[in-house]
Amino acid sequence: MLKSEMFDDIYRVGAHDILEFKAYLGGTWEFGTELRDVKSPIDGKTIARVSQVSKEQIEETLGTVHKVGREKIRNFSGEKRIKSFLKAAHLINEALDDFINVLVLDAGKPRGNAKGETEATIERLEKTTMESKRLTGDYLPGDWSHDTLESEGIIKREPYGITLAISPFNYPLFISATKMIPSLLSGNAVILKPSSADPIAPLLFTKVLELSGLPKESFATFTMDGRDMRNLVGDRRINTITFTGSTEIGKDILRNAGIKNFHMELGGKDPAIVLADAKLDRSIEEIIKGMVGYSGQRCDAIRLILAEEAIYESLKEKLVEKLKTIEPKNPLEDESAIMGPLISEASSDYIEEICQDNDAIEKGAKPLLEFKRVNNYVWPVLIETDKEILQSMRAFQEDVFGPLTLLTKVNNEDEAIEIANSSQFGLDAAIFGEDQAKIRKIVRKLEVGAVFINAAPRHGTGYYPFGGMKDSGMGREGIGYSIEQFTTTKTIVQHFKGRGIWEYI
Amino acid sequence: MLKSEMFDDIYRVGAHDILEFKAYLGGTWEFGTELRDVKSPIDGKTIARVSQVSKEQIEETLGTVHKVGREKIRNFSGEKRIKSFLKAAHLINEALDDFINVLVLDAGKPRGNAKGETEATIERLEKTTMESKRLTGDYLPGDWSHDTLESEGIIKREPYGITLAISPFNYPLFISATKMIPSLLSGNAVILKPSSADPIAPLLFTKVLELSGLPKESFATFTMDGRDMRNLVGDRRINTITFTGSTEIGKDILRNAGIKNFHMELGGKDPAIVLADAKLDRSIEEIIKGMVGYSGQRCDAIRLILAEEAIYESLKEKLVEKLKTIEPKNPLEDESAIMGPLISEASSDYIEEICQDNDAIEKGAKPLLEFKRVNNYVWPVLIETDKEILQSMRAFQEDVFGPLTLLTKVNNEDEAIEIANSSQFGLDAAIFGEDQAKIRKIVRKLEVGAVFINAAPRHGTGYYPFGGMKDSGMGREGIGYSIEQFTTTKTIVQHFKGRGIWEYI
Amino acid sequence: MLKSEMFDDIYRVGAHDILEFKAYLGGTWEFGTELRDVKSPIDGKTIARVSQVSKEQIEETLGTVHKVGREKIRNFSGEKRIKSFLKAAHLINEALDDFINVLVLDAGKPRGNAKGETEATIERLEKTTMESKRLTGDYLPGDWSHDTLESEGIIKREPYGITLAISPFNYPLFISATKMIPSLLSGNAVILKPSSADPIAPLLFTKVLELSGLPKESFATFTMDGRDMRNLVGDRRINTITFTGSTEIGKDILRNAGIKNFHMELGGKDPAIVLADAKLDRSIEEIIKGMVGYSGQRCDAIRLILAEEAIYESLKEKLVEKLKTIEPKNPLEDESAIMGPLISEASSDYIEEICQDNDAIEKGAKPLLEFKRVNNYVWPVLIETDKEILQSMRAFQEDVFGPLTLLTKVNNEDEAIEIANSSQFGLDAAIFGEDQAKIRKIVRKLEVGAVFINAAPRHGTGYYPFGGMKDSGMGREGIGYSIEQFTTTKTIVQHFKGRGIWEYI
Amino acid sequence: MLKSEMFDDIYRVGAHDILEFKAYLGGTWEFGTELRDVKSPIDGKTIARVSQVSKEQIEETLGTVHKVGREKIRNFSGEKRIKSFLKAAHLINEALDDFINVLVLDAGKPRGNAKGETEATIERLEKTTMESKRLTGDYLPGDWSHDTLESEGIIKREPYGITLAISPFNYPLFISATKMIPSLLSGNAVILKPSSADPIAPLLFTKVLELSGLPKESFATFTMDGRDMRNLVGDRRINTITFTGSTEIGKDILRNAGIKNFHMELGGKDPAIVLADAKLDRSIEEIIKGMVGYSGQRCDAIRLILAEEAIYESLKEKLVEKLKTIEPKNPLEDESAIMGPLISEASSDYIEEICQDNDAIEKGAKPLLEFKRVNNYVWPVLIETDKEILQSMRAFQEDVFGPLTLLTKVNNEDEAIEIANSSQFGLDAAIFGEDQAKIRKIVRKLEVGAVFINAAPRHGTGYYPFGGMKDSGMGREGIGYSIEQFTTTKTIVQHFKGRGIWEYI
Repeated sequence: MLKSEMFDDIYRVGAHDILEFKAYLGGTWEFGTELRDVKSPIDGKTIARVSQVSKEQIEETLGTVHKVGREKIRNFSGEKRIKSFLKAAHLINEALDDFINVLVLDAGKPRGNAKGETEATIERLEKTTMESKRLTGDYLPGDWSHDTLESEGIIKREPYGITLAISPFNYPLFISATKMIPSLLSGNAVILKPSSADPIAPLLFTKVLELSGLPKESFATFTMDGRDMRNLVGDRRINTITFTGSTEIGKDILRNAGIKNFHMELGGKDPAIVLADAKLDRSIEEIIKGMVGYSGQRCDAIRLILAEEAIYESLKEKLVEKLKTIEPKNPLEDESAIMGPLISEASSDYIEEICQDNDAIEKGAKPLLEFKRVNNYVWPVLIETDKEILQSMRAFQEDVFGPLTLLTKVNNEDEAIEIANSSQFGLDAAIFGEDQAKIRKIVRKLEVGAVFINAAPRHGTGYYPFGGMKDSGMGREGIGYSIEQFTTTKTIVQHFKGRGIWEYI
Repeated sequence: MLKSEMFDDIYRVGAHDILEFKAYLGGTWEFGTELRDVKSPIDGKTIARVSQVSKEQIEETLGTVHKVGREKIRNFSGEKRIKSFLKAAHLINEALDDFINVLVLDAGKPRGNAKGETEATIERLEKTTMESKRLTGDYLPGDWSHDTLESEGIIKREPYGITLAISPFNYPLFISATKMIPSLLSGNAVILKPSSADPIAPLLFTKVLELSGLPKESFATFTMDGRDMRNLVGDRRINTITFTGSTEIGKDILRNAGIKNFHMELGGKDPAIVLADAKLDRSIEEIIKGMVGYSGQRCDAIRLILAEEAIYESLKEKLVEKLKTIEPKNPLEDESAIMGPLISEASSDYIEEICQDNDAIEKGAKPLLEFKRVNNYVWPVLIETDKEILQSMRAFQEDVFGPLTLLTKVNNEDEAIEIANSSQFGLDAAIFGEDQAKIRKIVRKLEVGAVFINAAPRHGTGYYPFGGMKDSGMGREGIGYSIEQFTTTKTIVQHFKGRGIWEYI
Repeated sequence: MLKSEMFDDIYRVGAHDILEFKAYLGGTWEFGTELRDVKSPIDGKTIARVSQVSKEQIEETLGTVHKVGREKIRNFSGEKRIKSFLKAAHLINEALDDFINVLVLDAGKPRGNAKGETEATIERLEKTTMESKRLTGDYLPGDWSHDTLESEGIIKREPYGITLAISPFNYPLFISATKMIPSLLSGNAVILKPSSADPIAPLLFTKVLELSGLPKESFATFTMDGRDMRNLVGDRRINTITFTGSTEIGKDILRNAGIKNFHMELGGKDPAIVLADAKLDRSIEEIIKGMVGYSGQRCDAIRLILAEEAIYESLKEKLVEKLKTIEPKNPLEDESAIMGPLISEASSDYIEEICQDNDAIEKGAKPLLEFKRVNNYVWPVLIETDKEILQSMRAFQEDVFGPLTLLTKVNNEDEAIEIANSSQFGLDAAIFGEDQAKIRKIVRKLEVGAVFINAAPRHGTGYYPFGGMKDSGMGREGIGYSIEQFTTTKTIVQHFKGRGIWEYI
Repeated sequence: MLKSEMFDDIYRVGAHDILEFKAYLGGTWEFGTELRDVKSPIDGKTIARVSQVSKEQIEETLGTVHKVGREKIRNFSGEKRIKSFLKAAHLINEALDDFINVLVLDAGKPRGNAKGETEATIERLEKTTMESKRLTGDYLPGDWSHDTLESEGIIKREPYGITLAISPFNYPLFISATKMIPSLLSGNAVILKPSSADPIAPLLFTKVLELSGLPKESFATFTMDGRDMRNLVGDRRINTITFTGSTEIGKDILRNAGIKNFHMELGGKDPAIVLADAKLDRSIEEIIKGMVGYSGQRCDAIRLILAEEAIYESLKEKLVEKLKTIEPKNPLEDESAIMGPLISEASSDYIEEICQDNDAIEKGAKPLLEFKRVNNYVWPVLIETDKEILQSMRAFQEDVFGPLTLLTKVNNEDEAIEIANSSQFGLDAAIFGEDQAKIRKIVRKLEVGAVFINAAPRHGTGYYPFGGMKDSGMGREGIGYSIEQFTTTKTIVQHFKGRGIWEYI
């Protein structure tokens, strides 16, 4: 499975030639007391085994990271941090095929997506030079308030201490990277808990960081079960929790964590609003990308299309026509696949259940494409539904994570805004159209973190910052903006009262 | 009790000439179903009665604020918001005596402190013009990433929606104001829950806001019992919770709130580090202010003095000498009092209990002044203790809220840093001394939100931003900085792919 | 002429009851050795006499401002500066009628314009609180470059020292104010040289500043002849020159000034580009405002209309129709006048000369309205001209300052861009239309300082910053942005090499 | 002389094996109509010949750069610009020896300095990623001013067009680079005029830029005589002039340039202020570096030492002792030399003349080291002088460019400030000492662009921004800050009046 020699010391070859991976415990790679099978969504076969880190390993590692690693990353100058990240970028490039293969196998990603994710990770590492520019502070002269005469203040950015990064299955490499990189760049130690579904790429990335020269005690990667997370989440030595995943688990973290700094990227229900004067071909091309990319297993997937009456029928017709030509494929067999399997059978069962929401169908919801599924390979789903029943549908209320989108006709932009805002989620939205006054109004009124005009929502490498309103999250991330997420300020006030520096009249 | 006519419609005169106050329910002043007595800490007598708002009143008001008030404050232009705040400043000035008297009576504040608090509130209102400058956004050209060519982004600040502001008893007026003003200034509606101990000043402030011209449905003030808070805290229509109070309640809020934006200003254990070359008189003057101001009932009170050996004995001697001359007084009888009563008997009992920590005394902790208390009037307490036993003392571990300070000798700045950082709290610290290299090192290593050099910690009107690390809080506040706390960003990306605007080579 | 008593000590009543004004010499109001007549453009009558300051007065005043005033304004805390400006706003409001009357009489302004100018000045004074927020600095940690390890930097804003402000006749009050206010706000002393044509309003404004409490030696106002300016311009004690006026004089200043900080707001040739899909009525309304407001004696007047073919004829027809209804009036006789006289006979002669550019007429330039002039009252001029001859016309090449606009048909936005950019000037442009891709392209390609979409160029109170490209100027002004113009940075680097603060690994 | 093949096409081998260099004319390397000898300051021998570009070549190149190159650099995306600069860094590294050798030979630099200069150039190229972060803009909501309701503004950074970069002999490579890199990075075309004394390194750098992939018409390098500069300086197509050199030439440029954007880094007279409590050894080490590095041919050289009485004698004694051990050496013969020759005989003559200022000597100025000179090798000069005669000395008044420093005793910091500020120059200052109140006061009062505490002034790679006050310059440079120097703003205001986006109440 792995060609590059740089990973040789992080695994052994076990029974049936299956690789067995160690965990990274703040300086050393070690096996846990147990191993857990990792299966490929492509065919359900075991492709690797990872170590379950034990309570003792967690406790010891946390001790090391807290006592040693936390200090070391702060004593590793910013200049060296950047050099390490540039070296890490170089190392990933050297092991490019390993990363891509692992993402295909472990996450069931189409090869194009796997390649894109790896390249985005490289870019994120390279852009740390740009990102570091945010680590400056403010100087405040004291003489603009009576209160603070003869003093001056410096407001500098400070790392919180230790970050716990909990990453999801859908971008196992890139999201782990976007949590670890700005954390370390800004002087935090970091503990990564990758998704249990596809933890191999994060382990490779961890090895790359180790080789890059970053202080080895300043980070760790715990392959572990979600059930053991609560203690870790509530540990007083953890100062920041950055979590990408479901709103439900996000709330659970809040209940257990105590006073900490939180960054959460949770569920979405991104609408695409199509105005009467939208350029149809461009809009459809983008909407389809937004719907089926990685089988809709993306928080920024388009889950709802709200189209004005004048364009509704032609949009619907063309959309259905195009979607009929798209089908999920085995990414190992077809390199050009744009849809692969869903991450699990359970996930596919859930999509099927949502599609067969009898209550909705009785009320008039109408699938525009025949539902089709083979194991965890699910064909695109488009359901036409009246605006009146939308809010009562499970497909609208719940955080559906797959290739399922609702299509609804609206009379005007005000109706579109009202429907979009009635969701508990508020991640992104797309608007397709040309009328700038209408667009500006929608932009103003939507309760979302990001609006894309004439493009599908896409967070990419985070050049533009993103994050959700309402149940979609807390905080923002993006190149530079992540620094604000992983640091806080320290105010330094120097008083010179009576020392003769200022002689105010 | 109240001279100004502007408050005439917010109360009636009840039995024994005691004023009975209505609550402000997003547009109307109404009595609750019950009234609750408000007692003065000065003598324990009932000075007023306030309405307990009922569940129905809460639900109805929240509905109005959500459906009407939220929209109205956003449609009330920034220019008008500032004009309203300037008018509010003017109105407080007109009713200055009422505000000061209420603060003296209701919070037991020395008159000087009451005046200071009212003036700080006026300044905060006047500085909104300065503060508004933070409500600008970023423009990001798309051509610095391959991902975003032919697009451009605007990152603008957006209000979250509705703020729930929970304010404490110690600065009932000013802290209510610093939560409501930046919330409204940045376009949020806001619901205030004042402290049950002294809710009158917040009610007067609410009336002033109503008279200032701000949309009347955009704010409300709920006098209510802490027990009914959980539902409110978890209500989905509340988007931000700003809380000042104890760490324990802060954690409870997190457990019940769900995904929201949090700002918390919690407990402190502010150390004063006195270096060998400190200017002794200036240091002592500031340390005493830090210890006994409002009887130490301030999160930024000095609770721990860490002095280098060379200066320790002379510091101790002079400090004890000065403290012996300071005593709590009835602020109604003595206008120049600098200490008054503690807020309650319970609070005084607790201080007494902490002072009589037998375990500590057995280990060698030594009170340097005789403990003295009359009802809830408590004299300054200074306890000398070895650094070895410090961490085991309740006075170090718990969030003591009164005029009690520990005094400990250290060998050098490294020891001072280690002790200071061993606390669960991390609000502020003071350093007294002249050696800039030592000072710079301490500043770097302390895990606190603010460091004051040659002055006691003092948040004042928030010209310099502040907030805690670790269990001392989440987020930062201050003029301008509060805007970042009460707003998030909306990213607006406009794509122009293929539209001929850029012709990249 | 003046009703308010606050101006009593700045003038005496001379022969024929004409007021004779003193100059303000950094602390005292004094008569010069000579007096000069000030005439009203309304009827050419002498309305006042102002002092010509002598060489000796200039030298002495400059000495005082340099030795005393420069230091005093820096020792006058920022907080007090703001209070003074707020007081000045209040004083102008008290003497509102005097200011408006003087502007009508002295500059020949329609009353509405005079009122607008005075109110804008008040707003500028009130917005200093907002503006002051720009006076903060940067804190730079040293550890992002090998070069600067173990050091840290503060980059703070510093006043240059003394500003020489040279203001024009068209907004004698407001432009004087926008030069003096941010200069003083940021800690510079300032010497004002108002326009010889209408110096009374600046003198009143100077009196208001004196009464506001600002240090009296920190500013001066020299009513003087342009011929004596060169020495002043080149004086080494002057650090900044801010000039609004013609490009020719701007160049002359550069030749004589030596190494200084320059801000220049010079000539313009603002085009209005009208796209085929523009909303016609809105566009015409705005274009006419842009053409005839204060008889086009504004650097941001629309001097050139470039319209796409599809809309050209209807635009032309309606424009001519509307313009026929507009005529210059005596602002004393007609309070609703929107055009008054030009500032002088010479100015009117020049416009007439440009209109009778025989060379242009021979080539085909075609006036669309009959040329009409009575003394220095000039009716609107609109000349239709082919794009081929435009560049050869004096009306295009020179900085025409009056109600004269050229109208030219273009095939598309590219042609409009090319023509607009062929001018030596580059102040502003307006675009009318709806097609966002076209608009975005024009915005990108125009070589101007500001682009207004669906509105005429309008600098107003400077909420949005402005300033020219190419021969239209140097620097930018606007609330906040002006601070950057009147301050530079001081870098403070503190080295701690070997002092044990950082222990880099 | 050159080993790397990458330079093969920019020269031919002429008579006596001397290399004859072409100039780079916006796309092509060409010989001028004449050649000019370039001599080494080491021994006065001709080491190369460079092309004098003709008037025709200048005109044609300027035409190409204006018509083609200006547009091309703007159409070369930011992302690609950064890639090109990273490639350029790589190329310099490949030809490292050539660059170092050329700097030693052509500028007479000690090898250590030559290496440092080349490495700094590489770092500057690499830090463009960091620098690009400054190329963002502001978004201003319109609703904070009545004037601008229903509109919004974007303030974006724009390149001026074409930069003319005139660089000096002392850092021929690095200063050329710091002018060209941020110009191009921010989208300007640039024409470089290197110093006639040592133009070879700039030619090599130009070749590297050409090979890096930047649009070839977007830059040019003119080896030419100073006498032909005036036309170029005044050419309307040039929008920015960035000049490093003498104040006299700076003024001449201003006289001839017309309305343009200027950046000037001119003469200095940097003082080192030594307080009574300074750490002596560290101070002396830094002061000597500041005095003799590159024989004091640096604008940031220490030219004046102002020491408090208490430390004066010991400072003087140790300084003289150390300086006696330092002598200029032939950098070809001694690789560890820290002083080499001055750039020319004329320069050495001038230093000698200044040393023999009889007027000063008569008044009591006293050389502390015997004056020694061999050809253009000049030994360190330290002249003790009373504060009373300082201002009358040529060594104080003029911009001395060599290893000559004045030493003066002062009574206190106020005297030091007064003397330092009496100079016409205001580039940098150094302060040595520990008393923070004194230091803070000096920092506040000095009229300079940068203050270094406990280190000699050093601009290095520009991590901290720098630039002069008074006759020392205009503008600031530094990583990031240079972007503000080479760009201006374009304000884009979009009006939506009456379009229903905002419904203000």
